[in-house]
Amino acid sequence: MIEHTAVVRVRYGETDQMGVVYHPNYLLYFETGRTELLRSAGVAYRDLEKSGVFLVVTETSCRYRSAARYDEELKIVTTVTDVGKATVRFAYRVIGPDGTLLAEGHTELASVDAAKTPVRLPKDLSELLRK
Amino acid sequence: MIEHTAVVRVRYGETDQMGVVYHPNYLLYFETGRTELLRSAGVAYRDLEKSGVFLVVTETSCRYRSAARYDEELKIVTTVTDVGKATVRFAYRVIGPDGTLLAEGHTELASVDAAKTPVRLPKDLSELLRK
Amino acid sequence: MIEHTAVVRVRYGETDQMGVVYHPNYLLYFETGRTELLRSAGVAYRDLEKSGVFLVVTETSCRYRSAARYDEELKIVTTVTDVGKATVRFAYRVIGPDGTLLAEGHTELASVDAAKTPVRLPKDLSELLRK
Amino acid sequence: MIEHTAVVRVRYGETDQMGVVYHPNYLLYFETGRTELLRSAGVAYRDLEKSGVFLVVTETSCRYRSAARYDEELKIVTTVTDVGKATVRFAYRVIGPDGTLLAEGHTELASVDAAKTPVRLPKDLSELLRK
Repeated sequence: MIEHTAVVRVRYGETDQMGVVYHPNYLLYFETGRTELLRSAGVAYRDLEKSGVFLVVTETSCRYRSAARYDEELKIVTTVTDVGKATVRFAYRVIGPDGTLLAEGHTELASVDAAKTPVRLPKDLSELLRK
Repeated sequence: MIEHTAVVRVRYGETDQMGVVYHPNYLLYFETGRTELLRSAGVAYRDLEKSGVFLVVTETSCRYRSAARYDEELKIVTTVTDVGKATVRFAYRVIGPDGTLLAEGHTELASVDAAKTPVRLPKDLSELLRK
Repeated sequence: MIEHTAVVRVRYGETDQMGVVYHPNYLLYFETGRTELLRSAGVAYRDLEKSGVFLVVTETSCRYRSAARYDEELKIVTTVTDVGKATVRFAYRVIGPDGTLLAEGHTELASVDAAKTPVRLPKDLSELLRK
Repeated sequence: MIEHTAVVRVRYGETDQMGVVYHPNYLLYFETGRTELLRSAGVAYRDLEKSGVFLVVTETSCRYRSAARYDEELKIVTTVTDVGKATVRFAYRVIGPDGTLLAEGHTELASVDAAKTPVRLPKDLSELLRK
């Protein structure tokens, strides 16, 4: 299955008064992870939407192991773990500057059309993700 | 001109590592201020959009006087300061729990249609805001 | 176990270009849910932090059933599902204006001190949450 | 005066239901702009904070000319426009993929210590910014 590593730098506004990254913001990093995985595989998610296919998040989870801090460069390691007819599942690991695993999680997405009706994943996307 | 006071409670994620509200979040409070002013005057902004009129922010400013903190209830005092043919200007004061002025600012909004073309403010909205 | 219902109104900035609430924002609603559950039980989380006890999120999950939209008032039904020596687990259901279940999820939190060392939940908080 | 160009890519969650970047998010881009300007000049803002000097935003403004959209790479052109004893002012221009000016604005920041008391800008930072 495809694996891709994206890098994000923690923004000031992503921290909270505990001095660490506010936990929902890891889901933003996950989004960057899967978007860049798709881009590296030749698919701009923006073009997918323009073609009328939307990937909506139906499920997510995250385990927080250690805190990320302001201005750190984090590695978001994203893998495709399952591709169904109309769904795709990604797993993520967030790695800190010193190599520590900070968090890991997953998302499941469903492909729908503009009216939010489930549709099959486009064939070329599906094949691409199964590689 | 119309004046309205809305109350917002500072969320944890709105703070940053300085232990105070991250400055762009005041613009979210401004938005709540003008939305609730409109609602109190009988206009749900959501219905305005459904009718095909969108108010887009064309300008904003904010001066920060004193910091807001987690869990504080803030008063957002909103006033309409100018109503043009296709624009409306709001001013805001953000007041802390002890009555201190924390921030003040303004936004200017322009009315556009779904294609982002400028359109006149609906007549009833315009009259309502001029009261 | 304690159950509490909080109400949040969807803000404009919480939507995304699909026209629905951006999925990580449900975690903000969960936070409001547990904060208001604690408050209704007599505990201001802010005071807990002032006393030197921090509750950090160690795990979260969310299943998205149906989309929430701008300006809707959502009910966040929060329950305490487990109380350990130094952990507490909350479950959440997000209910739309017409009673539909929009999302459900959980968070697990660990009590730590200012140095991020695990500490026991304060006895009175622990007893309160076990009711 | 120093000028620096940073590049940010618009994230999905930064859009709103109008299909464009939600206006407060430009202030996040401004923050990236000034942080990267400082870094390019040899100052990591994070180290400044560690040394006990904090730059707090006291004033901001933004004029929105044209909308930014999801996944676009924006150029944030930041310039230092004024350096006082304990203040620094930055101006920003946000440029779209086709060279269009999307927004322009400014922030004024004041240097304070951990107790939020105004302090002089560190001499080396001050000299650096005046170049």
